[in-house]
Amino acid sequence: MPAEERVIERAVILSTGDELTSGLTVDTNSNWLADKLFENGIDLVAVITVGDDAERIRWAFESALDRADLVISTGGLGPTADDLTTEVLAATLGREIVFDEASAQHMRALFRSIGRDMPQNNLRQANFPAGAVILANPLGTAPGYRVEVDWKGRRRFVVVLPGVPREMKPMTENEVLPWLRGLDATGQVYLSRSFQTFGASESALDEMMGRAVAPEEGRLSFRAAFPQISVRVTVHGRPHEAEAALARLSERVRERIGDYVFGEGAATMEGVVNQLLRQRRWKLAIAESCTGGLVAERLTNVPGSSQVFAGGLVAYTPQTKQATLGVRAETLERHGAVSDEVAREMAAGARRACDADVAVSVTGVAGPDGGTAENPVGTVYVGFACDGALVSRRYKLWGTRDWIRLLASQIALDWVRRHALGRPPQESLLIRR
Amino acid sequence: MPAEERVIERAVILSTGDELTSGLTVDTNSNWLADKLFENGIDLVAVITVGDDAERIRWAFESALDRADLVISTGGLGPTADDLTTEVLAATLGREIVFDEASAQHMRALFRSIGRDMPQNNLRQANFPAGAVILANPLGTAPGYRVEVDWKGRRRFVVVLPGVPREMKPMTENEVLPWLRGLDATGQVYLSRSFQTFGASESALDEMMGRAVAPEEGRLSFRAAFPQISVRVTVHGRPHEAEAALARLSERVRERIGDYVFGEGAATMEGVVNQLLRQRRWKLAIAESCTGGLVAERLTNVPGSSQVFAGGLVAYTPQTKQATLGVRAETLERHGAVSDEVAREMAAGARRACDADVAVSVTGVAGPDGGTAENPVGTVYVGFACDGALVSRRYKLWGTRDWIRLLASQIALDWVRRHALGRPPQESLLIRR
Repeated sequence: MPAEERVIERAVILSTGDELTSGLTVDTNSNWLADKLFENGIDLVAVITVGDDAERIRWAFESALDRADLVISTGGLGPTADDLTTEVLAATLGREIVFDEASAQHMRALFRSIGRDMPQNNLRQANFPAGAVILANPLGTAPGYRVEVDWKGRRRFVVVLPGVPREMKPMTENEVLPWLRGLDATGQVYLSRSFQTFGASESALDEMMGRAVAPEEGRLSFRAAFPQISVRVTVHGRPHEAEAALARLSERVRERIGDYVFGEGAATMEGVVNQLLRQRRWKLAIAESCTGGLVAERLTNVPGSSQVFAGGLVAYTPQTKQATLGVRAETLERHGAVSDEVAREMAAGARRACDADVAVSVTGVAGPDGGTAENPVGTVYVGFACDGALVSRRYKLWGTRDWIRLLASQIALDWVRRHALGRPPQESLLIRR
Repeated sequence: MPAEERVIERAVILSTGDELTSGLTVDTNSNWLADKLFENGIDLVAVITVGDDAERIRWAFESALDRADLVISTGGLGPTADDLTTEVLAATLGREIVFDEASAQHMRALFRSIGRDMPQNNLRQANFPAGAVILANPLGTAPGYRVEVDWKGRRRFVVVLPGVPREMKPMTENEVLPWLRGLDATGQVYLSRSFQTFGASESALDEMMGRAVAPEEGRLSFRAAFPQISVRVTVHGRPHEAEAALARLSERVRERIGDYVFGEGAATMEGVVNQLLRQRRWKLAIAESCTGGLVAERLTNVPGSSQVFAGGLVAYTPQTKQATLGVRAETLERHGAVSDEVAREMAAGARRACDADVAVSVTGVAGPDGGTAENPVGTVYVGFACDGALVSRRYKLWGTRDWIRLLASQIALDWVRRHALGRPPQESLLIRR
């Protein structure tokens, strides 16, 4: 942290709603906001969640204002009587409630656009504490707002947003974060860049990075979203210097863990594979046994995948492996369905059946049953076929059935990615239990 | 609420961890615990989340003890120096910390079982505030505990659990909930039963239920986990009467919305289908276009699905539909790939190719592109083939690509379920946007 004083150093997030305290809904807003605050160097003191109850909301606002410069509230802005945020906040701050005609107009127009009359109680959503700056909500009826207050002699800011994630998130991106950055009188910015990795565990990546990023240069953080781990570099400083520092540190990250990086930002393995196949003008075929359609499902989850996906065959039984993929009875008998040989014949068969450029296959034991001494649960073979090559490799995976399937599907997609980049497949995973 | 006084009426959940306040991890523990408290009739006053910081944890404990009879804390029980829960709680309560040799023995045994020596710092996990009742953690090194305290003249209980969900949940089920129920001096119990439904929206189900359950008889609650909605009935009273009331109300639920119920408790559509196929000794084949393998992936996500799943064919292109499913070029040309006719030929082709008893097929437009005037995005045809029948039906779905695919996969599985039960497929969904 630099010595210059910042207007906002500490924040509290306040989530309101009976659906949260009764266990009906998982609060994902707070996590998303926590991440944004972290990226902007703001220390999150606490998240407080309360139901739709005036006394509890008031306690939460008071506790938050006592402890932080910034309070971000989500929820409780709906049109019904149990939506109390504005009423309680105004009372807490000792401010009047004022009605905003422009917001009411916007709501009426929104209702007209879907051919309905606006119910009278929606007008409550045009109420704001006096002095509030209204934040537009293009996707819903409830606008948000922010209000600057003097709380026991200290300067505080309260930001009030709707609880619906698809409304709250763009409002935060478009209205709140730019304002927050503008408030920072130090002229300093926080910049960050994320790398998506697969194949090494968090602790393995941490070890590889070693002391490559000194604490005074920036911050490395890891976020695991099985089976991929993102590595984020965050720097802080004056804009020009921060950009240079980010470029420098990003290069160091790539030097150390580059082989595990498959994309940046919000990249997914299936998205990257889709893009590479499109660039190469290749059509992919997929043959699956233990993953049961998961590889195909993931690839086709990307819009426009029909341009790169020839077809998939899920062959769960020896009969189907023979009938749909042309795996030979003799191969199945001699080597078993979970083997290098069958993985290769599955890939070759899928490529032939779907008339594809490249094909990938997966056969293995996802468990919980079906393991043998030779092929215990977690044994997975990946096969790959293209013009002039037919290869396979054995992997020893672990975990629950879900995990093994997901990990196997990721390895299969990574093979396609690496082949498209002219790189060999990963020999084994640096992922420890 | 009955007039008898209960020992625990109000609770606060306290979640600790820098991974929560920096946005790295979504706090799913609190939602799970909130649901358990709700089921047991305990009013959740607040959830407070703070990072690994002694002053903040202390503030959270104090706020919680001021406001509730029961405080449930998760996280901060690890072996490292930033795990502060026990230390801070003991200081807050003014209790000494005592070392429990039996817990240390258990940890050493756990490490021995995986062939490793226990690091010295794990011994911290055998520290407890004086007077704590230790709660066994069969799945990890950190035991939990509960402690009864006098807080400003009021009787309070603090339950401390590890933050790892797979350790926290069984400890709650096995140690905390039975103790909580035993504490209830009124002799009354909370009982509940959940019904899993598909095909009607929350508001449609609510309308169908009408006033069938009066507030004094019990409570109905809906939980949407797209595309299924669970309906829970909760009753409260002396054990014998509560059981009778639950049976009576459950019957009313079945009367009103029975056609949409596909299972109870934690049932999933794929699990129910798997079980029915097993009972009938049928093998299922699946032909997919727009769902891209999702139907097969879901069915095979159930352990033991190899006994009921013959195989799946994901045919994304007209060529693959012809080559792997035997759909006729003429049919494709005359009716288009998204049509009743092609859905039927896909189902028949999959059944033949995989030598299956029954087959289901899906073809449609998941979007965001590919819609036409005749078949806009969201148009999905489901086909079904069995001995003596070959049928199909058109559905008009909506939403994002993900939603359309998930909804279509659910309809396809529901067709198989309904066929196995000798019931006709649903004509259309009672789900509004």
